[in-house]
Amino acid sequence: MKKFINDPKQFVPEMLHGLALANPDTLRYVPEYNLIHRADAPNDNKVTIIQGSGSGHEPAHVMTVGRGMLDAACPGDVFAAPPMDYIYETTKLMSSPKGVLLLVNNYTGDRMAFDMAQELSEADGVKVRTLFIDDDVSVQDSTYTVGRRGVAGNFFVMKAVGAASENGADLDELMRIGEKVNSVTRTMGLALTACTPPSKGSPLFELGEDEIEVGVGIHGEPGRRRDKWAPANELVEELLEAVVSDLPFASGDRVALMINGLGGTPISELYLLYGIAHDKLTERGITVGRNYVGEYCTSLDMAGASLTLVKLDDEIEALLAAPAEIAIRVF
Amino acid sequence: MKKFINDPKQFVPEMLHGLALANPDTLRYVPEYNLIHRADAPNDNKVTIIQGSGSGHEPAHVMTVGRGMLDAACPGDVFAAPPMDYIYETTKLMSSPKGVLLLVNNYTGDRMAFDMAQELSEADGVKVRTLFIDDDVSVQDSTYTVGRRGVAGNFFVMKAVGAASENGADLDELMRIGEKVNSVTRTMGLALTACTPPSKGSPLFELGEDEIEVGVGIHGEPGRRRDKWAPANELVEELLEAVVSDLPFASGDRVALMINGLGGTPISELYLLYGIAHDKLTERGITVGRNYVGEYCTSLDMAGASLTLVKLDDEIEALLAAPAEIAIRVF
Repeated sequence: MKKFINDPKQFVPEMLHGLALANPDTLRYVPEYNLIHRADAPNDNKVTIIQGSGSGHEPAHVMTVGRGMLDAACPGDVFAAPPMDYIYETTKLMSSPKGVLLLVNNYTGDRMAFDMAQELSEADGVKVRTLFIDDDVSVQDSTYTVGRRGVAGNFFVMKAVGAASENGADLDELMRIGEKVNSVTRTMGLALTACTPPSKGSPLFELGEDEIEVGVGIHGEPGRRRDKWAPANELVEELLEAVVSDLPFASGDRVALMINGLGGTPISELYLLYGIAHDKLTERGITVGRNYVGEYCTSLDMAGASLTLVKLDDEIEALLAAPAEIAIRVF
Repeated sequence: MKKFINDPKQFVPEMLHGLALANPDTLRYVPEYNLIHRADAPNDNKVTIIQGSGSGHEPAHVMTVGRGMLDAACPGDVFAAPPMDYIYETTKLMSSPKGVLLLVNNYTGDRMAFDMAQELSEADGVKVRTLFIDDDVSVQDSTYTVGRRGVAGNFFVMKAVGAASENGADLDELMRIGEKVNSVTRTMGLALTACTPPSKGSPLFELGEDEIEVGVGIHGEPGRRRDKWAPANELVEELLEAVVSDLPFASGDRVALMINGLGGTPISELYLLYGIAHDKLTERGITVGRNYVGEYCTSLDMAGASLTLVKLDDEIEALLAAPAEIAIRVF
């Protein structure tokens, strides 16, 4: 394994240490609970929004903490749900009189940990609700889930509830908005290569020289099938057809289109995919109102990409367009 | 070769098509010359700033066109200097009465093409100057250069002259600023893996399972030596020592620190490197005034990273902090 790493056990803490050092004015790091939070959180005048998940999906979620997005992130070790007591302590530390909203991608381990933490927090008098995200159309049940997986589409839920909470929305309203965005968001991805978790030291699965995994999960879980590599036009057509036919999206719709890199794919290839997807949507009479090209939810060093569509209405589009300020930037 | 690609010959045009579609309000694409330019360029009231280079280094430079950065980018095919006539036509199309500043990383092929294009443009009455960037401390002469190579540090030159030109600086002033920033910018990188150019279809060089290339160039050129993989602490120490001792940077200095990913390295590892580098600079009495973590100048899908330091003074820091608006974003 060739990675930029010291001790695999210290991979997550050392990454979080770097993240906090790079953002001294806006972020705080509490090593005891792997907690990254806004320097100004909790804030009595807004609902606290926390997302937790395994690490290895960066920038999700530790690098999407900031004004207009998350108040805090509570990561586990690589591809492992955060420990229940980390979530519980994070929820208490970050609690606000307006309440706490926990965002959780739909994986069995995460659900269990967050459900227990919610119960314990409520017993302590914290007002807390949990919203599950399940945008992946690839498979119904899967390796780590009952029901669909939550993948890169979680970005849109975070962004929408983050914007609404800055505007003073209460917990019920945030649940309504989050569930609404999740209900119109669909994603499918594919892998060109496997990924290598630091503690394992070797690829999580094997793909042949000319093989791809269509519908891969963000932890390397199997998708719909293994197939031969194909030109980008064909791969985009398959992802797009799966996503469009699922909601379904239809001629006349206005959408947000995201091409998300899975960690090892250069941005040049992502823009190439974007151009193809945009043209294909236009041919179907679907208008791209907002676009997102880059890395939003990765799978360590996996080469691959996912395609997400969100059906826009005025409310969702305004929330996505609202200002936000997070660690990931180029200036 | 498993990439998101159709015909390798169409890789660059298809990427540029996607980039333009994703930025309809701000960018224009002229396929005839591979030209990406600001929708509002040229502007009679500012010097036009153009960077050209081979493709394969994205976001440099086609994705750093925008307010406060480049007015236009003139890319060649992957790892190939732009054709002289593309540069010439771009310079004419983008010319302003205040002049044109060409930014060129120091590679022999690029220098030749840009020198000829400058001569021809001047014969047509365009006021044009060229600034060469050579921040790589790894090797003195190299595969494609006489003198040092220009690598990720070019970002700081672009950013500084981009900001100054928005404030109305003339061509002489931009040359002064650009040369000043280049003179205090130093970079060194290392590769964990090779990269695969689309038209070649196989890795550009071979690295063993436990080998790294220390001081690698952004086209996979050899650096100082090939060595065994080592923990991140040791790798950062080597990059930092090479960079710090070169200018040299000294206790009491205030710097910008960039950890740049080379294309295939996840952002989690880049933040881990950042934390180590920041701590090591602090130990040396050097203050990190601004930081940059992400991909700025890549080498296709190469896993690896480079470390850049810029010695800050009030003038440079103000220019780096000025607003800018380019294609790469997360909202």
